[in-house]
Amino acid sequence: MTTLSPTLELACELIRRASVTPLDEGCQQLMMERLAACGFNVEPMNIEDVDNFWARRGGEGPVLCFAGHTDVVPTGPLEAWQHAPFAAFVDDEGMLHGRGAADMKGSLAAMLVAVERFVADHPQHQGAIAFLITSDEEGPALHGTQAVVERLAARNERLDWCIVGEPSSTSLVGDMVKNGRRGSLNGHLRVRGVQGHVAYPHLAKNPIHLAAPALAELAGEHWDAGNAFFPPTSFQISNLNSGTGTTNVIPGELNCLFNFRFSTESTVEGLQQRVETILDKHGLQWQIDWSLSGLPFLTEPGALLDAVSASIRNVTGRETVASTTGGTSDGRFIATLGTQVVELGPVNATIHQVNERVLASDLDLLTEIYYQTLVRLLAN
Amino acid sequence: MTTLSPTLELACELIRRASVTPLDEGCQQLMMERLAACGFNVEPMNIEDVDNFWARRGGEGPVLCFAGHTDVVPTGPLEAWQHAPFAAFVDDEGMLHGRGAADMKGSLAAMLVAVERFVADHPQHQGAIAFLITSDEEGPALHGTQAVVERLAARNERLDWCIVGEPSSTSLVGDMVKNGRRGSLNGHLRVRGVQGHVAYPHLAKNPIHLAAPALAELAGEHWDAGNAFFPPTSFQISNLNSGTGTTNVIPGELNCLFNFRFSTESTVEGLQQRVETILDKHGLQWQIDWSLSGLPFLTEPGALLDAVSASIRNVTGRETVASTTGGTSDGRFIATLGTQVVELGPVNATIHQVNERVLASDLDLLTEIYYQTLVRLLAN
Ligand SMILES: [Zn+2]
Ligand SMILES: [Zn+2]
Repeated sequence: MTTLSPTLELACELIRRASVTPLDEGCQQLMMERLAACGFNVEPMNIEDVDNFWARRGGEGPVLCFAGHTDVVPTGPLEAWQHAPFAAFVDDEGMLHGRGAADMKGSLAAMLVAVERFVADHPQHQGAIAFLITSDEEGPALHGTQAVVERLAARNERLDWCIVGEPSSTSLVGDMVKNGRRGSLNGHLRVRGVQGHVAYPHLAKNPIHLAAPALAELAGEHWDAGNAFFPPTSFQISNLNSGTGTTNVIPGELNCLFNFRFSTESTVEGLQQRVETILDKHGLQWQIDWSLSGLPFLTEPGALLDAVSASIRNVTGRETVASTTGGTSDGRFIATLGTQVVELGPVNATIHQVNERVLASDLDLLTEIYYQTLVRLLAN
Repeated sequence: MTTLSPTLELACELIRRASVTPLDEGCQQLMMERLAACGFNVEPMNIEDVDNFWARRGGEGPVLCFAGHTDVVPTGPLEAWQHAPFAAFVDDEGMLHGRGAADMKGSLAAMLVAVERFVADHPQHQGAIAFLITSDEEGPALHGTQAVVERLAARNERLDWCIVGEPSSTSLVGDMVKNGRRGSLNGHLRVRGVQGHVAYPHLAKNPIHLAAPALAELAGEHWDAGNAFFPPTSFQISNLNSGTGTTNVIPGELNCLFNFRFSTESTVEGLQQRVETILDKHGLQWQIDWSLSGLPFLTEPGALLDAVSASIRNVTGRETVASTTGGTSDGRFIATLGTQVVELGPVNATIHQVNERVLASDLDLLTEIYYQTLVRLLAN
């Protein structure tokens, strides 16, 4: 039996705790004990049914925070897994299998081991190191990072740089980091018609017929061209429903859920107005419930991105690509503190799927990348 | 207490039998006994769970058939009825209340009483009188008129003229008869896309976005202009569904149910081809399950329409309008025998609704109209 590295040992210990959102199952307790042991001031911040903690080590000066989540998504069908999802099994090809291996217990282990090593090597480091950990990133995310950030903001906690351990890499560890995320804006559109019988169409107003040209125009609209950091804003209808199931009734209403992923070239108000103008142009009787999931954020090139890129280059020989594509992340909450935020973690190919797995040696490379980033930003 | 006319007596007796489809509750037994009593040869034709009968009186020569259904649609919410739906109550304003009063137990009573009177007055009438009665017109209609017509066709039963008792009148009895019906063609359209995440639209193909311009074009298409007998063909989408309910998933498929009501200016094959051409033009991956509910039929001016119109004019002073609008009826099955078919019944304003009702005196007028039509076509 081969000996596992400290990062892999810890990753396995975390995976074996079946912390499906919002459960934590002792993952945070384990992390807090080890952080306390290397000089961190640890503060649990449990809010409603969600476990979170904030930990900080150091004095005045710039603060580098590691952020992440101990919760994992459900396993899905157990029979589809090659290895039990919470067994944390390393196979002959060096793959670590288990729910959370990539998203993101592997990263949590890497950041903790990197920090332990850095503190041992540089006990008198500059500034401060912090951890912001939640158990509700995969769920509603109301009582997780967002709530903790509100408390930190209320007491003017300084937070210069943040590395979020989300699995940012696409095929090789470090090949991509996220230096921002698009905004996400949801709309629930209702188009009113007049119900009737298909044999008497002149007595009815078919909301499907009325809405189809407007939906076609919305689907074809060019919202913006993006910019150097963001791809163009995209619009997607995720759900469209009208009708009672009966084949001879013209429905009275059409319901439509849609989502914008938007760049910093568009604003919430601007997108709302453009949608509403198109609906009005087609003479629809409409109503929209808007809900904003997150504003876009962007970390432009600077100290954090430089340190991360240089560390990736040094450890892997790769030039990382900074990207703002993909879904939202808790980074959007942390960025509201004026913090430079970069997401850096292992390969995301299997996240949220059955047989989630990651190359075990990648977690050791990730540990080294985190370590070197600490050195570049905080070593004396 | 006022004495009810024979037609109203019988209408009330029929309404009090709660014959919700496919139940008959003895309505047909009652009719068959009275027809047998005035010299009809009565043949029950029960098929599966549906009661039907065929009755015929007379010899060689032209055959005038009365057709109709003893079944009624469900009551809907009982608390919404002013009078119990199966009580058959005549109010102070002379309205007969009850499920089936208009559709179509009132007509059944009128045709039976008219025939009884005609046979008494003209025992040696020309040709033959027939009844084709089903208890499954409001339901799937598989084992009702369609099945009986198949049996009649198999034995070469002669059927020159048919009066269907469907409530054809719009505001005054006799103001409209139906001399045909449009065809009805259903389609179930599936448009294939590629499922994905809203944050990665380039990896998905949104079937809603792809289909919207095609649906807009179908909704705006001019199918034909109708003709002297038929309104233009109409296309209506009754159901449109896509999406899993989740707001961040681009669906993989769109489902759409649509219906054509078509005139004799269009053919089934022509409409199918035009829909398919539009879908292809928009580059969709599509599939359609077609189902034909009924071909259009038309009774052009002739002996039956002349006799009916003259009788209406004589009894009510009204010039009736012959129309082909509205839903399908069992007339479409009977017309396949080469029969001239006219639908003539009371005012249809309340059919299939709560508080279904009809002016009681209209049923007596209707009896007289049926009687005079018998005289015009079959009296010696
Ligand atoms: Zn994650
Ligand atoms: Zn009817």
